[in-house]
Amino acid sequence: FPNTYGMPLIQFVESNETANFPAVNVGVILSGGQAPGGHNVISGLFDGIKKLNKDSKLYGFILGPGGLINHHYTELTSNIINEYRNTGGFDIIGSGRTKLETTEQFEKGYEILKKLNIKALVIIGGDDSNTNACVLAEYYVAKKQGIQIIGCPKTIDGDLKNEMIETSFGFDTACKVYSEVIGNIQRDCNSARKYWHFIKLMGRSASHIALECALQTQPNICIISEEVEAKNMSLNDVVTYIAQAVANRSAKGNNFGTILIPEGLVEFIPAMKRLIAELNDFLVANANEFAAIDKENQQEYIISKLSKENADIYASLPKGVARQLTLDRDPHGNVQVSLIMLEVNSV
Amino acid sequence: FPNTYGMPLIQFVESNETANFPAVNVGVILSGGQAPGGHNVISGLFDGIKKLNKDSKLYGFILGPGGLINHHYTELTSNIINEYRNTGGFDIIGSGRTKLETTEQFEKGYEILKKLNIKALVIIGGDDSNTNACVLAEYYVAKKQGIQIIGCPKTIDGDLKNEMIETSFGFDTACKVYSEVIGNIQRDCNSARKYWHFIKLMGRSASHIALECALQTQPNICIISEEVEAKNMSLNDVVTYIAQAVANRSAKGNNFGTILIPEGLVEFIPAMKRLIAELNDFLVANANEFAAIDKENQQEYIISKLSKENADIYASLPKGVARQLTLDRDPHGNVQVSLIMLEVNSV
Repeated sequence: FPNTYGMPLIQFVESNETANFPAVNVGVILSGGQAPGGHNVISGLFDGIKKLNKDSKLYGFILGPGGLINHHYTELTSNIINEYRNTGGFDIIGSGRTKLETTEQFEKGYEILKKLNIKALVIIGGDDSNTNACVLAEYYVAKKQGIQIIGCPKTIDGDLKNEMIETSFGFDTACKVYSEVIGNIQRDCNSARKYWHFIKLMGRSASHIALECALQTQPNICIISEEVEAKNMSLNDVVTYIAQAVANRSAKGNNFGTILIPEGLVEFIPAMKRLIAELNDFLVANANEFAAIDKENQQEYIISKLSKENADIYASLPKGVARQLTLDRDPHGNVQVSLIMLEVNSV
Repeated sequence: FPNTYGMPLIQFVESNETANFPAVNVGVILSGGQAPGGHNVISGLFDGIKKLNKDSKLYGFILGPGGLINHHYTELTSNIINEYRNTGGFDIIGSGRTKLETTEQFEKGYEILKKLNIKALVIIGGDDSNTNACVLAEYYVAKKQGIQIIGCPKTIDGDLKNEMIETSFGFDTACKVYSEVIGNIQRDCNSARKYWHFIKLMGRSASHIALECALQTQPNICIISEEVEAKNMSLNDVVTYIAQAVANRSAKGNNFGTILIPEGLVEFIPAMKRLIAELNDFLVANANEFAAIDKENQQEYIISKLSKENADIYASLPKGVARQLTLDRDPHGNVQVSLIMLEVNSV
């Protein structure tokens, strides 16, 4: 980002002077999953630009970045804003996940921004959306099109964090809502005193949610994927660790408890990561051949094609889980670990 | 219940007189699933008997009706009570589901009640627990053992209701918690504007929770099992009704919405009810023969054994659902419909 990286920081300072600012038109886009702070960021924007000049206007692009490209927008008037203040959700203008990456998209966006005389566009979203924002900003600066692009950090993952961002909204809500539910389960656990509860939490690429919820709710066990990776634990090590803790509590007569597990755990286990990587590469390269294999023989086929180490791990998995590792790949060809269903046996 | 049915009602009236009551010992049992009101019922009992006479004592039986039979109890002192006031859960003395039905159980209970000089036993629970309470009361009255048994209505199902019980605790909490979650899903639905959410709610034998949640959250569709039964709808009718509503919204460009479905729906559909009844009878009578059938041939085997009408319905079900109707029976030999998993296809 030669044109936008390293730009000076703005600092807000209090002042008693009332300055006269020219009216400014601003656009706003909601991107990705909803979080309660979204409507209030938009209300804050509205109040801010109206305070500068009552003729300022705020435009919302409908259903995410797609609204910018498709010229689908609405002016956010005080009537609309006042209906949504302090309400959760992203429904004021809807959200979307369109990636901004082509020159054609940038130019279509510029067309409508210019038409509406928008000088600043605020994109509220996570790491992907802020990457969109950076790419767009770089493009408009390079072309000297005179439009500021401003990213607002919202993410459930808790991975947008630096000295200026203590925590992102979304993450905060997720941890509080999860912790309330976990607390209810723990109450149930202590009331019935006969079940172990395994609670899967969001967090494919980072265990921040599991960690924060563990700090809030103090479960009996919390697995942190990054620790598992750092200690080079195998799937067997993780299972043994859990089984040992269950056995220790059982020895004291406590056959119940709660365990938090981040959904991305399996991808952090180094041996599983190597297996999944080889599977991903193999299945992308041999998609047609694999599709022709009879369902009953898929496991054997995979085992015959993998390296020895990975074949052994694959063979050790429960059949249902093993099969799911070969299905449902995302657009990048990766297995979607968060969709893997467990084997459920009725009690 | 010749000895206990139709006894006179007690009415509480205000009075300024302070009467001197003798000390009384009271026992309390928590039964079934937790609900936030449980600890407060116990606190209220404690405050009440202490107000009558400070030497009164409250004993809690541990882990449900089993605690009475096994003589497992604790005196609930003000220290303990004060720690649990206004907290949710049943963890103050734990809960359980032991049925009280044999003379031996009644006598074991009587032994400990007599030893602790308990004159009244309060059982907090749902319809099963209140049946326990009635049976126990009848027994003690018949034997003139001088112990009152008092049932306190707590149920998530909302089916303990009469002119004296406006709503039971448990039901109230369930509806509020569910409605909050449904509300969050609706916000998400309106923000993303591209998903239909099918939300399964508790309620196997009654749709009270679904109805109350629908009144609180106004979903696009709510299926009420009792209506389906009264209108003699088939599974096909229910599916068509939902599909039509989805199509109607789609025609207006709204390809999203929320649908509430009570978990017991399938048992209320008259044709499915007949199928399940025949299956239950057949599988109980032919358990060994069925167990010997190869998994691949089970569906065909069942179809060949059922009456024409039921065989046709069974054949029309998705394979996975059909198989589950032949598995996982509860202790009464009934299929556990709430455990049936849907076929999930990734989007």
